[in-house]
Amino acid sequence: MSPAPDALLTPEAAARALRGQPFSRLIGARLATIAGGRATLEVDVRDELRQQQGVVHGGVLAYLADNALTFAGGSVLGPAVLTAGMTIDYVRPGRTGTLSARATVVHATARQTVCRCEVVEVAEDGTETVCAVAQGTIRSVRPPA
Amino acid sequence: MSPAPDALLTPEAAARALRGQPFSRLIGARLATIAGGRATLEVDVRDELRQQQGVVHGGVLAYLADNALTFAGGSVLGPAVLTAGMTIDYVRPGRTGTLSARATVVHATARQTVCRCEVVEVAEDGTETVCAVAQGTIRSVRPPA
Amino acid sequence: MSPAPDALLTPEAAARALRGQPFSRLIGARLATIAGGRATLEVDVRDELRQQQGVVHGGVLAYLADNALTFAGGSVLGPAVLTAGMTIDYVRPGRTGTLSARATVVHATARQTVCRCEVVEVAEDGTETVCAVAQGTIRSVRPPA
Amino acid sequence: MSPAPDALLTPEAAARALRGQPFSRLIGARLATIAGGRATLEVDVRDELRQQQGVVHGGVLAYLADNALTFAGGSVLGPAVLTAGMTIDYVRPGRTGTLSARATVVHATARQTVCRCEVVEVAEDGTETVCAVAQGTIRSVRPPA
Repeated sequence: MSPAPDALLTPEAAARALRGQPFSRLIGARLATIAGGRATLEVDVRDELRQQQGVVHGGVLAYLADNALTFAGGSVLGPAVLTAGMTIDYVRPGRTGTLSARATVVHATARQTVCRCEVVEVAEDGTETVCAVAQGTIRSVRPPA
Repeated sequence: MSPAPDALLTPEAAARALRGQPFSRLIGARLATIAGGRATLEVDVRDELRQQQGVVHGGVLAYLADNALTFAGGSVLGPAVLTAGMTIDYVRPGRTGTLSARATVVHATARQTVCRCEVVEVAEDGTETVCAVAQGTIRSVRPPA
Repeated sequence: MSPAPDALLTPEAAARALRGQPFSRLIGARLATIAGGRATLEVDVRDELRQQQGVVHGGVLAYLADNALTFAGGSVLGPAVLTAGMTIDYVRPGRTGTLSARATVVHATARQTVCRCEVVEVAEDGTETVCAVAQGTIRSVRPPA
Repeated sequence: MSPAPDALLTPEAAARALRGQPFSRLIGARLATIAGGRATLEVDVRDELRQQQGVVHGGVLAYLADNALTFAGGSVLGPAVLTAGMTIDYVRPGRTGTLSARATVVHATARQTVCRCEVVEVAEDGTETVCAVAQGTIRSVRPPA
């Protein structure tokens, strides 16, 4: 990617980036919000996302955390970013409704951000339950000026 | 899951468990090997698994690591396990060929294993390149005897 | 969990626990606050805590995060806890003043908490700078009732 | 630190670096081996390193893992390195004898390594028991040529 030097990750550019990800389309993810160090990525639970016991596969939670962390970092660093690494603790299976991955930048330099994310199940009655808690490092891949 | 007290995660039971995961079928994963603290999970790269720059989405690597770690832990603890958490460091994008997630138990008690995993790209000419390195904790959910 | 009323980690019990840790005395740590899912552990920077380039050793930040996470978890789970694991991202060296490790429970069940921590340098003029960001899992070791 | 461009982390330079760390002297650590992507750091258990229940403080294991990972990375990248982050899973308390932190590079580029470490208790009769398992990222801080 060779962004213009002043490239910012606007909500439009971020939504376009997500739509440009075939894997995110396969999962069915949408970008609910992105702005100033925060990003929320959502997916509606459906049977294709489950594992053999009927709950949402941990890999779906990992995908959501990974991608929400990346968009949160990108909202500060610009579009040319990569996720260097991530830790995720699974605390409760996802089952129903919508999974909402809410990521926030907690520390930023010009080259890197450390972000946190909670993946929350939002049931149809609005009840929220945390399913996973993550922390990750997002780095700019733009050459220093 | 209510396994019989003597339930072991045989290769057949593991393959059946993987086939029972709708999300793993969506990804297209197959269990290459599982035995005595080791498991290898594979997926052939295809366009549906990519992100907007054309490389394999980090979420696919995270899914592979998560699931390979779980099967490695299950090969020691039995089928009634859950992944408590995982750390993944991404070191190089996946692009082509087959992604092979190779997980190994490095420490086990009766209730828990700590496992490691490398996600390796195997190109068509057999060249191997590490794409991600992970560590995770898998726990038995069977009540103590 | 139904701990007896005296099985709670009161501020007095927590301070006593910290004083009972020879390694925490060697480091020179003190418990600034502990209550309801939050704990702050502090240490004044001194030359003994540095590495060869003059900044505070990363191991001191790791100690502070580990212990603050444990006390935060213990403030919810009671005194019989252990730290199962921790991830720490170092974002800037510590140099001067006081290092303050501020940990918070972000998810709790009766048996386990996931906690986060920021290790902040507080300079003599009160300026605060984040040095490290951590996430960890603290578990109760008390047998279920 | 201002290494010459071709500076290598020789065993002598590494031992000097460790002796130059006041915190490592406070802990009592010694560098047992370092070469080609591997480093072993050791400390003899003594009462000052314990917590209130008599086992070695988790912060000591975290220090050992952090520092062994850094030396392993430095053995490949040269002396001008920093530890970007680390994950540690504690699997059994340390109690006696010598704690030996054995770190290995599992992936290296010119700018970064991902390393793994096991912290092992070596009892006086030679019995070895794993106490902690870690993974970390070490980066070169030398400006690109």
